Amino acid sequence: MLKIDLNCDMGESFGAWQMGNDDEILASVSSANIACGFHAGDPSVMRTTVERALEKGVAIGAHPGFPDLSGFGRRNLSVSEQEAYDFTLYQVGALYGFVKAQGSKMQHVKPHGALYNMAAKDPVLAGAIARAVRDLDEELILFGLSGGELIRAGKEVGLQTASEVFADRTYQPDGSLTPRTQPNALITEDEKAVAQVIRMVKEGIVMDTSGNDVPIEAHTVCIHGDGAHALTFARKINRTLADEGIDIKSFK
Amino acid sequence: MLKIDLNCDMGESFGAWQMGNDDEILASVSSANIACGFHAGDPSVMRTTVERALEKGVAIGAHPGFPDLSGFGRRNLSVSEQEAYDFTLYQVGALYGFVKAQGSKMQHVKPHGALYNMAAKDPVLAGAIARAVRDLDEELILFGLSGGELIRAGKEVGLQTASEVFADRTYQPDGSLTPRTQPNALITEDEKAVAQVIRMVKEGIVMDTSGNDVPIEAHTVCIHGDGAHALTFARKINRTLADEGIDIKSFK
Amino acid sequence: MLKIDLNCDMGESFGAWQMGNDDEILASVSSANIACGFHAGDPSVMRTTVERALEKGVAIGAHPGFPDLSGFGRRNLSVSEQEAYDFTLYQVGALYGFVKAQGSKMQHVKPHGALYNMAAKDPVLAGAIARAVRDLDEELILFGLSGGELIRAGKEVGLQTASEVFADRTYQPDGSLTPRTQPNALITEDEKAVAQVIRMVKEGIVMDTSGNDVPIEAHTVCIHGDGAHALTFARKINRTLADEGIDIKSFK
Amino acid sequence: MLKIDLNCDMGESFGAWQMGNDDEILASVSSANIACGFHAGDPSVMRTTVERALEKGVAIGAHPGFPDLSGFGRRNLSVSEQEAYDFTLYQVGALYGFVKAQGSKMQHVKPHGALYNMAAKDPVLAGAIARAVRDLDEELILFGLSGGELIRAGKEVGLQTASEVFADRTYQPDGSLTPRTQPNALITEDEKAVAQVIRMVKEGIVMDTSGNDVPIEAHTVCIHGDGAHALTFARKINRTLADEGIDIKSFK
Repeated sequence: MLKIDLNCDMGESFGAWQMGNDDEILASVSSANIACGFHAGDPSVMRTTVERALEKGVAIGAHPGFPDLSGFGRRNLSVSEQEAYDFTLYQVGALYGFVKAQGSKMQHVKPHGALYNMAAKDPVLAGAIARAVRDLDEELILFGLSGGELIRAGKEVGLQTASEVFADRTYQPDGSLTPRTQPNALITEDEKAVAQVIRMVKEGIVMDTSGNDVPIEAHTVCIHGDGAHALTFARKINRTLADEGIDIKSFK
Repeated sequence: MLKIDLNCDMGESFGAWQMGNDDEILASVSSANIACGFHAGDPSVMRTTVERALEKGVAIGAHPGFPDLSGFGRRNLSVSEQEAYDFTLYQVGALYGFVKAQGSKMQHVKPHGALYNMAAKDPVLAGAIARAVRDLDEELILFGLSGGELIRAGKEVGLQTASEVFADRTYQPDGSLTPRTQPNALITEDEKAVAQVIRMVKEGIVMDTSGNDVPIEAHTVCIHGDGAHALTFARKINRTLADEGIDIKSFK
Repeated sequence: MLKIDLNCDMGESFGAWQMGNDDEILASVSSANIACGFHAGDPSVMRTTVERALEKGVAIGAHPGFPDLSGFGRRNLSVSEQEAYDFTLYQVGALYGFVKAQGSKMQHVKPHGALYNMAAKDPVLAGAIARAVRDLDEELILFGLSGGELIRAGKEVGLQTASEVFADRTYQPDGSLTPRTQPNALITEDEKAVAQVIRMVKEGIVMDTSGNDVPIEAHTVCIHGDGAHALTFARKINRTLADEGIDIKSFK
Repeated sequence: MLKIDLNCDMGESFGAWQMGNDDEILASVSSANIACGFHAGDPSVMRTTVERALEKGVAIGAHPGFPDLSGFGRRNLSVSEQEAYDFTLYQVGALYGFVKAQGSKMQHVKPHGALYNMAAKDPVLAGAIARAVRDLDEELILFGLSGGELIRAGKEVGLQTASEVFADRTYQPDGSLTPRTQPNALITEDEKAVAQVIRMVKEGIVMDTSGNDVPIEAHTVCIHGDGAHALTFARKINRTLADEGIDIKSFK
């Protein structure tokens, strides 16, 4: 039977500020990427989110980001290889502790925002992240952009990797995402987005912006958790995957 | 043979700012309390300090503090029991990851500054810290002020504890430290300070400010790492303990 | 004609996190207390909020808080007199710059959260805040709890002060607020809250929790901006004040 | 009589961490660039540094940086034009308040670290900084790399500008600084460094790395304040400038 992991960023509240619909989204995904305090999330949000994911049987991952709270980790920051290793290990270790304290085990690590995007293209940054994850626990699974440098780096250091694809983004002929600066970067119709996911999972193929089929590896699909539309879409993709006989399952 | 642990706060640099003489002090102590990023220490300082402590065979402990970088964790902050549990677990988990990544194991946890002082007196705060440590790893040793609430809380949750004494502070008839606001709070003569330690270790007794002997439990002695005088005193106490046939040893 | 100022805390979003209904609340108040980056607010939120207040003709005040973003400035922090002076001047200066850059002038300063509450009781802290405000611009008006130390300190350094009262809080026989830890601290019925305000403004009297009348000085009334109920109440108090012939006006 | 301004970065301590030799360096410079809390400096350090500069008659400038305390503002951060405007105005406004509270007036603004370097090349970023400074106070002088975009942007918005040159850096044929990644970027011999300054001031010429003379505008020379060598060099350049009959003077 075919299966796919659905993941969503979570635990992105901070102090008095709320963000996202974590409780509702947890019903629709198999893996949760939990913010670790640098771009979002504080220790109390982290603990609470870990507890809720465990209650719902959703696999837990760390979601480390740049040390940039006011920018929500979305701004590129020029860090050294060593700095990237160090702050990745710090953040993943902190979340690892919360999961361990609950008697459970972390499944994966997926970098956030600008760190994710930069690591998809920069082999040095990708290597630093991969080594930090491997050094903490070699059984952790590294999530990265399908076809990107982080997946390559993860394999190189001996980690299991999960190639991530996007339901609502279009793809270029080389299998990369169309940059958000371009007008056709986003898929706004739910049906098209769901259909793209089904094809990626079933056939390992995505149609690029020129209309040609491109091979793509799809182990996990990113679902957005914020905004009014997030929940509706999450439920829609769940239902369609079920109809197509595709099991939504984490990697554990 | 008699033995005692000597501990020192370390890894209190941050970013471009240096603090302390960690490399030199490591030669004179058996346990290092490493800052975890909330009052001092950044991920790179934490990794480096862990590496150096391991090289020197010094046991590693986490040194969590209040989230107060500009106040160096020295200002009282009114946090809830749950917040204290959460930020302790976060910080200890983060350092735990660095130690695990080096293939080693953390020995202990000692709260920093205002958190240490408040936890010595407040059973609710002390309980939150003790549970966070126990939930992360029940083999960790909890360091606290000899006779204080943190030691009591640690025992209550089943942790091994280490009662901490001070070489350069005077004691009250009830075994508590003379508050720093009082003129006779500090012992400024090295000989007196060393003699106080020897007596606490050998006889389990300290002379209070009224000149009476008071029983005191001494498992670990706090050595300061900052200031010009720190290194001289560290060497002096090392030599005297050796002369007295007291072994300087961590708990591992 | 009788008049009263209505003030509301604003600009408490931060980075990607939204808080409050600033645009709607601005239609119902005469003075805006704008967060200055230490407990909430970032430079972009500050500028935007200043612009909107100016558009609506609402007088602008700085709303400095403790340096405690994760605690939203609601946790007591033990700071020195000098630290309080310095971080008040920093925050008020920063907002002052945004107002000056728009060609306008700041009306007032109102401390936030724990800083407000502590300054109402602690003459040393109150004095530090008052001097910082006076040293920046002696024409600024200092807002503080009616009958509290901050009002006293403001007068002492020669500042104009505005005594603040609360619509939805009950009062003690000595004119102080009933602590939130007590069951009867809050007035939950809108009619009672509005009636309390009308009486404070018209007669300078509030009924305490024992049912006796207590004199109270009321120059400005605090309106809450957060929560579903905030807007409804703001409109209700506006309408009733108008019906009673009381003008809602800032101090400029 | 010829004159030149000597400027130095100052007030870069933070909380418990000390940096620089501000008191000594103040005797050797005419302008102080004071950190504003985002990359270094806290409110207490800012106030103290302003007081000391005023005592010594040194002109005061704001030294705003990226919001990156752990990176000391030295890491490139991709910020929007609006964000740059907003955080520049915030930081400059905060320091402006401290100077105003002392009854004095700020002379200039010089961006720090990565913000300085990026603004020298990026006209959009440079424009945002220039407008923020102009909007706060159009009499402020904008310091920027001689020949760079910040100087151009400052002039464009109507600000007085001061072209900055470096004693210890070599120059390229196009008048730009040799990147630090190149082996010949630094001038390590004091005599050479001083001679370069004298020639820039007297003749408006610097010899580039190919040995050709290049015209350069020199209104202010950057002196480093940190490191053992800083003080010695500061005194040496002072003496030589005096010997050459060049007056060290700020712009006020």
